[in-house]
Amino acid sequence: MPKPQKEIINDLLGYEGLKIIQRPDIFNFSLDSTLLAYFVTINKKDHQIIDLGCGNGYIPIFLSLRTSAQIIGVELQEEIYDLARRSVSYNHLEEQIKIYQGNLKDIYKVVGSSKFDVVTSNPPFFKYQPSSNINESIYKTIARHEIEATLEDIVKVSNILLKDGGTLAMVHRVDRMIEVFDTFNKYHFAIKRLRFVYPKKTSDKALVLLIEAKKKGSSGNLKILPPLYVYDENNQYTEEILKIFNYKKEE
Amino acid sequence: MPKPQKEIINDLLGYEGLKIIQRPDIFNFSLDSTLLAYFVTINKKDHQIIDLGCGNGYIPIFLSLRTSAQIIGVELQEEIYDLARRSVSYNHLEEQIKIYQGNLKDIYKVVGSSKFDVVTSNPPFFKYQPSSNINESIYKTIARHEIEATLEDIVKVSNILLKDGGTLAMVHRVDRMIEVFDTFNKYHFAIKRLRFVYPKKTSDKALVLLIEAKKKGSSGNLKILPPLYVYDENNQYTEEILKIFNYKKEE
Repeated sequence: MPKPQKEIINDLLGYEGLKIIQRPDIFNFSLDSTLLAYFVTINKKDHQIIDLGCGNGYIPIFLSLRTSAQIIGVELQEEIYDLARRSVSYNHLEEQIKIYQGNLKDIYKVVGSSKFDVVTSNPPFFKYQPSSNINESIYKTIARHEIEATLEDIVKVSNILLKDGGTLAMVHRVDRMIEVFDTFNKYHFAIKRLRFVYPKKTSDKALVLLIEAKKKGSSGNLKILPPLYVYDENNQYTEEILKIFNYKKEE
Repeated sequence: MPKPQKEIINDLLGYEGLKIIQRPDIFNFSLDSTLLAYFVTINKKDHQIIDLGCGNGYIPIFLSLRTSAQIIGVELQEEIYDLARRSVSYNHLEEQIKIYQGNLKDIYKVVGSSKFDVVTSNPPFFKYQPSSNINESIYKTIARHEIEATLEDIVKVSNILLKDGGTLAMVHRVDRMIEVFDTFNKYHFAIKRLRFVYPKKTSDKALVLLIEAKKKGSSGNLKILPPLYVYDENNQYTEEILKIFNYKKEE
């Protein structure tokens, strides 16, 4: 077990405002979560949002800038759940955001079925195999590998949680895109928006995909958005990424 | 029936070299075919290529710049087949390119099965419905609508024509991407390369997709290539498109 490390309180985004409690030994800043929280479509009429595998609460806290809907975060690991809960308190967001500890596969038993407008998830990206490189902390291993919840678990429970016509938004690796599509299809999600994330304009391929689908939506009207580039030619964040980091509360 | 119109002999690409015979009333220049002929992976070891629904022979003639493999084109409509055949003659490419007239669904009965290294196809993009806008010429209607051959027909016969490990490359509308993926999967094609074509950098979505897959390939190693933009901010062709138009024979 790694030695307990000091916690760090960071700005959630690049300005004085919301804060997030991090512990580098167990859970770090994730650009993917930022991109997903920015990407997902939130409508004015959306009242109930749930983030599956919420880590330290990054996505729920970012979403509080975009909506006044009720937001639930679900996190399995006690120490990370505790970071999320305290980050919510630190920002005085307890009225809007509730964090639950538990396995996302069962969360509908606690929070109810067919009631959510939006599900978000930045899931474990990697399949778990005995040969997987898991010699980091158990916290990170569970967050990154499909040990406690697989892609299919997440899509399946999203189908249970969402109203018909509700939105599932996810970030995943391009490597697994076909599997993501097949799994969405299996659980009656019609893919509506896709955005590919490239490290740089000169990259020969995209690494990450942002995907949004509607439960029991009609097929068709798929939109492939413009590419999203993370770094410019000088290895600095691009203007669009900086714009996301400077995201201001919608009035 | 439209009045017969004069034929036009154009440069195939933007330089003095290969020519293509066009008849604006029945078959026009297609940027999509150009992009596909440029996109498809051709290996040195590839000996047999077939283009399904070859129109006036654009793709086979372009491919003659990229490979010395034998190339077959298949075209159903007699008048268009005749344009293709005469374009091949005009360029003295009869030794390399053979054009067949017939329905691509049955072409394996004539040219053989499990022998091709590469199949290309710029298929009819639109489903045929009685309400479809088909008040243009019958030639264009058949080229653009799935009257004589559907997406599934093309993928199915591609599976018959190709060797195991052979390449199927297609251009299609983003609207139908999920159906394209499902159909490829049904006939045991593993998707390997994707490129999205946007009208301009400022376009809010891609319209066309270039896709390449391997017959009975292993899943994984999917590559999402950089976006391809057709026009620049002044509505002129982009540098990359001009580079394609200036494609020179590989030595």
